[in-house]
Amino acid sequence: MDTAIAEVERGGRVESRHAGTAVVVDAAGDVVFALGDIERPTFPRSAVKAFLALPLVESGAADRLGLGDEELALACASHTGEPAHVAVAARMLARAGRDVGCLECGTHWPVDDAAARDLARTGGAPSALHNNCSGKHAGFVCLACDRGEAPGGYVDPGHPIMREVTAALADVTGAPHRADNRGIDGCSIPTYAIPLRALAHGFARFGTGHGLGAERARAAARLRAAVAASPFMVAGTGRFDTRLMQALGPRVFSKMGAEGIMAASLPQQGLGIAVKCHDGAPRAAEVAMAALLTRFLGPEGAGDPILGTLARYELKNWNGIRVGEVRATGFT
Amino acid sequence: MDTAIAEVERGGRVESRHAGTAVVVDAAGDVVFALGDIERPTFPRSAVKAFLALPLVESGAADRLGLGDEELALACASHTGEPAHVAVAARMLARAGRDVGCLECGTHWPVDDAAARDLARTGGAPSALHNNCSGKHAGFVCLACDRGEAPGGYVDPGHPIMREVTAALADVTGAPHRADNRGIDGCSIPTYAIPLRALAHGFARFGTGHGLGAERARAAARLRAAVAASPFMVAGTGRFDTRLMQALGPRVFSKMGAEGIMAASLPQQGLGIAVKCHDGAPRAAEVAMAALLTRFLGPEGAGDPILGTLARYELKNWNGIRVGEVRATGFT
Repeated sequence: MDTAIAEVERGGRVESRHAGTAVVVDAAGDVVFALGDIERPTFPRSAVKAFLALPLVESGAADRLGLGDEELALACASHTGEPAHVAVAARMLARAGRDVGCLECGTHWPVDDAAARDLARTGGAPSALHNNCSGKHAGFVCLACDRGEAPGGYVDPGHPIMREVTAALADVTGAPHRADNRGIDGCSIPTYAIPLRALAHGFARFGTGHGLGAERARAAARLRAAVAASPFMVAGTGRFDTRLMQALGPRVFSKMGAEGIMAASLPQQGLGIAVKCHDGAPRAAEVAMAALLTRFLGPEGAGDPILGTLARYELKNWNGIRVGEVRATGFT
Repeated sequence: MDTAIAEVERGGRVESRHAGTAVVVDAAGDVVFALGDIERPTFPRSAVKAFLALPLVESGAADRLGLGDEELALACASHTGEPAHVAVAARMLARAGRDVGCLECGTHWPVDDAAARDLARTGGAPSALHNNCSGKHAGFVCLACDRGEAPGGYVDPGHPIMREVTAALADVTGAPHRADNRGIDGCSIPTYAIPLRALAHGFARFGTGHGLGAERARAAARLRAAVAASPFMVAGTGRFDTRLMQALGPRVFSKMGAEGIMAASLPQQGLGIAVKCHDGAPRAAEVAMAALLTRFLGPEGAGDPILGTLARYELKNWNGIRVGEVRATGFT
């Protein structure tokens, strides 16, 4: 249960260390690598946003509304609230004939500090468009409007749109999604605790299409292509997922979730990876994911310096002096 | 090594959990409570800022320069960069006949998000005065100027001022402070890895004066009184140390440090407490400290709702819906 996945060094000593669980699964569901209790139910949080966007694409709604790469990448995003993210979220709603008033995700200042200060500097205030989940929510609104459903209340587990996307989650992961494993996410939609193994299996299927059915497999490929084409939209400046996919393109699809969750698809290798840092720290889940990608991408990942940088990086203080480093442990 | 000290619940399940080490020591150095490896060298980071301020007071420099409660509390602070903090830091430097140009802590935007946005909104930019350590650094500059030393280079371990404050650290904690247990802190001064037990012992001495010598004991009492009188100065809006001491005043002196360190003095009980969350999470160190304070303050802490609130609190999402809670574990 408590194997180290990452540590933080200062002055030649381990100052902090992170335990976690990690698993790599192939599209048939066979476990290729496991660390810790991979059957423990874990909330995937925002890591499954791309699965939630599948009905938007496979229903034909995305095409009918003219959603392109940027919009589809934003539907899969935990974005930093930078101006380009906000503009695309507004555009998605406009395509559905709606506006920000339909969003039920709540309002917060941009996650990106510089974007938040820029917004304040220009006399602005945040709206629900700045919420890191606004693209996902705009996608739900688009799907509802295309279906002729009233979007109001779409965050409720019993709303037709939420029932449809929850069914997609259950199908892709193969895990039950019921009231007894349900929690509420930061943006008010349900999140369901599932085995980390099932999350990784879902990512193996999402990356390969195996076991998804033809329509769903095509929708998964479309979403992966959209994020590979617009990796800025899925996260933002300096973020792990954006940096990784800006460098590796369609060779990997990765997505973070709150409380130290990371998941990724390796389409060429036919693998899905999931990591949970037990204490919820993103820094640990990220370096562990980078180390696992280095190991399992093989020649597909070799030669690109981004993986090494993401798996082990220096910490510098406010004067630019190196004080230590963050690094993955135990994956080589 | 890996006992839980805190957990985060969502939807009735433990979503994340934090391991840690905790110790309670009396002024004679006897261990009253221990969890985990209390002898493991640990960087106390900013938790020892009040010890670093002892020479400023015991030398008479603080009185000669007319430093009052606010200035002394800020010398012990990891502050949030709010306007009042910045003003007091500037005042300290002015008393020494210096200005912000003397600070060697580096520059960052205010830790308090609203203060950062307010600064941006008014067209401002951060200076070293906004650095969370600016009060500590201003204290070093005050001490240097009062001593007739050139302050330049005071962050270097070999500078006379840094040698003097390091000697105070070694005296109060009883632990060696040498090159072989030294790291560099975020503000560029040295930080020394010492047993968590020694950190707690230092806080027991700091809270009681026992074993410190008369001058140092008086200086410790003066610093504790200053922080009790100006708890906003030692941290800022919504921060654990500020909220705790605003409620409990001189009954407790507490101080956080980066990477999940918390330490506290209980003067009436003659105890010192130190907590390290192994993964570096402040939320875990804070709830654990609140639980230990509840247990060891006894009647001194009973009846004040702040301790219960700090040891276990609800998590609400962006729509104000309860999604879970953060709570200490294993201290009752």
